[in-house]
Amino acid sequence: MTTQPDLLDTLRQITGATHVLCDGDLSAYTQDWRKRSQGKALAVVRPASVQEVAAIVKACATAGTSLVPQGGNTGLVVGSVPDESGTQVVLSLQRMNAVRAIDAANLTVTVEAGCILQTLQQTAEKAGFLFPLSLAAEGSCTIGGNLASNAGGTQVLRYGNARDLCLGLEVVNAQGEIWHGLSGLRKDNTGYDLRDLFVGSEGTLGIITAATLKLYPQPAARLTAWAALPSMDAAVTLLGLAHQHLGASLTGFEVMGQFALSLVDKHFPQLRVPFFDASAASAGPPQARPAPSGGSEPHAVGSVGAPAASAGPPQARPAPSGGSEPHAVGSVGAPAASAGPPQARPAPSGGSEPHAVGSVGAPYFVLLENSDSESEAHARARFEQLLETAFDQGCVLDAVVAENLSQAKGLWHIRESIPLAQAEEGLNIKHDISIAVSRIPAFVAATDALLRQHIDGVRLVNFGHLGDGNLHYNVQAPEGGDAHAFLRNHEDEVNTLVYDSVARFDGSISAEHGVGSLKTDMLPAYKSPVALSMMHAIKRAMDPQNIMNPGRIVKL
Amino acid sequence: MTTQPDLLDTLRQITGATHVLCDGDLSAYTQDWRKRSQGKALAVVRPASVQEVAAIVKACATAGTSLVPQGGNTGLVVGSVPDESGTQVVLSLQRMNAVRAIDAANLTVTVEAGCILQTLQQTAEKAGFLFPLSLAAEGSCTIGGNLASNAGGTQVLRYGNARDLCLGLEVVNAQGEIWHGLSGLRKDNTGYDLRDLFVGSEGTLGIITAATLKLYPQPAARLTAWAALPSMDAAVTLLGLAHQHLGASLTGFEVMGQFALSLVDKHFPQLRVPFFDASAASAGPPQARPAPSGGSEPHAVGSVGAPAASAGPPQARPAPSGGSEPHAVGSVGAPAASAGPPQARPAPSGGSEPHAVGSVGAPYFVLLENSDSESEAHARARFEQLLETAFDQGCVLDAVVAENLSQAKGLWHIRESIPLAQAEEGLNIKHDISIAVSRIPAFVAATDALLRQHIDGVRLVNFGHLGDGNLHYNVQAPEGGDAHAFLRNHEDEVNTLVYDSVARFDGSISAEHGVGSLKTDMLPAYKSPVALSMMHAIKRAMDPQNIMNPGRIVKL
Repeated sequence: MTTQPDLLDTLRQITGATHVLCDGDLSAYTQDWRKRSQGKALAVVRPASVQEVAAIVKACATAGTSLVPQGGNTGLVVGSVPDESGTQVVLSLQRMNAVRAIDAANLTVTVEAGCILQTLQQTAEKAGFLFPLSLAAEGSCTIGGNLASNAGGTQVLRYGNARDLCLGLEVVNAQGEIWHGLSGLRKDNTGYDLRDLFVGSEGTLGIITAATLKLYPQPAARLTAWAALPSMDAAVTLLGLAHQHLGASLTGFEVMGQFALSLVDKHFPQLRVPFFDASAASAGPPQARPAPSGGSEPHAVGSVGAPAASAGPPQARPAPSGGSEPHAVGSVGAPAASAGPPQARPAPSGGSEPHAVGSVGAPYFVLLENSDSESEAHARARFEQLLETAFDQGCVLDAVVAENLSQAKGLWHIRESIPLAQAEEGLNIKHDISIAVSRIPAFVAATDALLRQHIDGVRLVNFGHLGDGNLHYNVQAPEGGDAHAFLRNHEDEVNTLVYDSVARFDGSISAEHGVGSLKTDMLPAYKSPVALSMMHAIKRAMDPQNIMNPGRIVKL
Repeated sequence: MTTQPDLLDTLRQITGATHVLCDGDLSAYTQDWRKRSQGKALAVVRPASVQEVAAIVKACATAGTSLVPQGGNTGLVVGSVPDESGTQVVLSLQRMNAVRAIDAANLTVTVEAGCILQTLQQTAEKAGFLFPLSLAAEGSCTIGGNLASNAGGTQVLRYGNARDLCLGLEVVNAQGEIWHGLSGLRKDNTGYDLRDLFVGSEGTLGIITAATLKLYPQPAARLTAWAALPSMDAAVTLLGLAHQHLGASLTGFEVMGQFALSLVDKHFPQLRVPFFDASAASAGPPQARPAPSGGSEPHAVGSVGAPAASAGPPQARPAPSGGSEPHAVGSVGAPAASAGPPQARPAPSGGSEPHAVGSVGAPYFVLLENSDSESEAHARARFEQLLETAFDQGCVLDAVVAENLSQAKGLWHIRESIPLAQAEEGLNIKHDISIAVSRIPAFVAATDALLRQHIDGVRLVNFGHLGDGNLHYNVQAPEGGDAHAFLRNHEDEVNTLVYDSVARFDGSISAEHGVGSLKTDMLPAYKSPVALSMMHAIKRAMDPQNIMNPGRIVKL
């Protein structure tokens, strides 16, 4: 057992003294992203190689000092900052940020843990490939953190979580040994799946120092559509139709409740949410709507012009303001796979005039993304076929297909502005839950009712990755009330109500954010005791000294 | 510790006496599929429920008796039959074969371990979905065995291994506890990935009794193409082009060496291998070929008429015999995504006459599969675009696109007949290896040369799932020699030569067949000692009594 001063000396010998930080403002390393926890570190060590990581782990093991691995420190569950004891070493992977190699024929990239996700996306793009993992924090999160927390995001529907994108790992285990597992093989059945054991283990079994990841061909076109829907049931039906029509081209399917979009409309009116009617937005749970005035006629794709008044110059405008022709279902023939000019086709009987009636006050909205390996015109034609079918079946009230990439980005921007709009509205309680897609309508109906019954004036900000069964089912304090007081008085109650409901629907209380410190203590209430006992056995076997990010996921 | 007679009594109480087999011919349970091992069981127990499985495991744990879980007993590495001691209990999952539920909106199916893979495929199809796992033994292998061995097969390129198709498991662990993990969630970050730990563990950590698996929409059309190529390098180039052109519609990419197909041509001449010239087939490794007589002009898709003489009535004829028009590149316009009749387009300059010159004696052939979510015509148009580009780049000598489903099946039938043709030719040494796709040409060149240098007259049967980097790089005894003697004298030598070469190219000695008894002892020579020590730690933690399929994967 070395003493603490001895350990610091050893660490300085390993990385050089400039990369062992003990003094000054270390809050970038010791405070979590959501500012829910402010810890204190014995030191922050910033190694430059896997050999240095291994030496640091061995030194800490000898000293009996525990380690907290850290990437971009953007986690949402307090999993990568030290506790308040001042005895833990934060091991930051930020200096290990190289993209080591791209293997074009193998469709793989090998990258160090500290590489920023966006850097990896851009490096892949420059080489002509797609690295599909994409999430809000991509400008500052690291690929090591993405793997340690099995990050999700907006492309999971097609490409899977971080886990699914990973072929091989380089890891320093709790004994300070280096596992060189960067094989890049798509098939390897020579024993237990250690890779997937480390992925999602949040640094509690070892430290991921590098990974070999899958690349994909860049799609020829990415197009988005935006639809107003009469119910969550309709969203599930539309999802099934989208799977049938688009196959693997369906790369995104995001659902947004009326109240979630009303916050965007309120705080960022320049974004102009398509088909959104501010006057119809209510804080309560959406109800099944009566048929809109104007008849039950299916509505043409291409309806445009958000009814919300635009204040100030628009920053991102998803729908054209009348300058260019709205794109009606079937009114333009797709140029198809063959060469030659697209042929104009007559508009289908039924009228090609765009009209926006029918979606006023729609309780749910969906953003769909279609990544096409042919062309934008082909992507558009597929979208139009899908939406025409959806209109016919009554699961879509109104829809618009983005006219170009800038509009497509504008629609994504609206979706991604929901958390920010929530923050503008005030403190709130966040959930990251998953339910089988088929059970989501019943879950939402039951849980909306439950919360309204227990808490007067509660406002539900429901949105998420419906294609993956993942909802960010968030709770905002009643309008005009004291949000701090609301959280103080109601956070535990709200969590229990929501998570108990999730459990009744066989869902998960953490879909993509992980366990961290925030959810470790509540895990036993919601996780199978048999699963927990196996997790304990694995932790004890892999990290018998309990020095790897102790107290997260399982407490020994 | 109970005695053996006590244990048998207990087992009879659990399942009923008729489901505890001790006498008579038990070779279906005790001999492996390839007849490489004939074991002896204390008893074969056939439980009907997960509760019975749990009770059996508890009884065996109390008695200190080890268990060998078994599905269809079709494994290729002796992993599911008992040893020769007569002290092990075979636990057959065959009676637990129900498809418990299909959740259409969630795109999942929940099925018991003993369900035959083909039954599951058919059940999914009847419900309008695709369960994509497909492999030679699908008529008798079980889904539990597929998961326990992380089976691969022909659709991995698009849909992944058995692991990638699995969302949740029901497992009886080594303590006889039941883990109810059949969640059907696509995202669940609440702790260690136990699911993937059991998948591929070959029954050494616990017994998979049921699984929730992914379903996919049925593609609108599945089309195949067959191409003759000048080299393995060209096959890797073609694969890259196919990824770019077809995106996720590319569901199969199988490579076959000239000699592998010559065995099909010899033993099943009625199959008529397209573009195959028996006179050019040689047992040696393919060499880079000089440009074929006839010029370097790219050749039209649709070239037909295999030069091999057909003996007897053809059973499956992949290429039309002249009755229907061969389908030349660009000669028929794809009807595209829009409705309306396909429009005839003029043939491209360069002539649309099919011709077969250029591929005579091609060293490699590729079968491509395109699963299209639109239509057969669209699938054909995409294939033609791809192959046209491939001709232009010189990586395809000749190609034919199947005219219909029956022809498509015929092409698959040729590919799937290789192992049978090998068996007809006599005993041989099989390998199931994986290498990064980019390294396969160099690996094949180096290993071909190595084997020829060491073993006179050796014949290499090289084929496999190139899209996954997975080759069945098999070795046939010299022509006319005594195959038994060849194996006796050379099997170990051949294995060492091949696996050492695989190791030099950072590959795996078991891509999709697993470890079983056959490869457990050689694993330490080819697997990272750090990985092995972690695997040992996990085995000891999960099965401290070492009663779950002991001696497989890791020996305690």
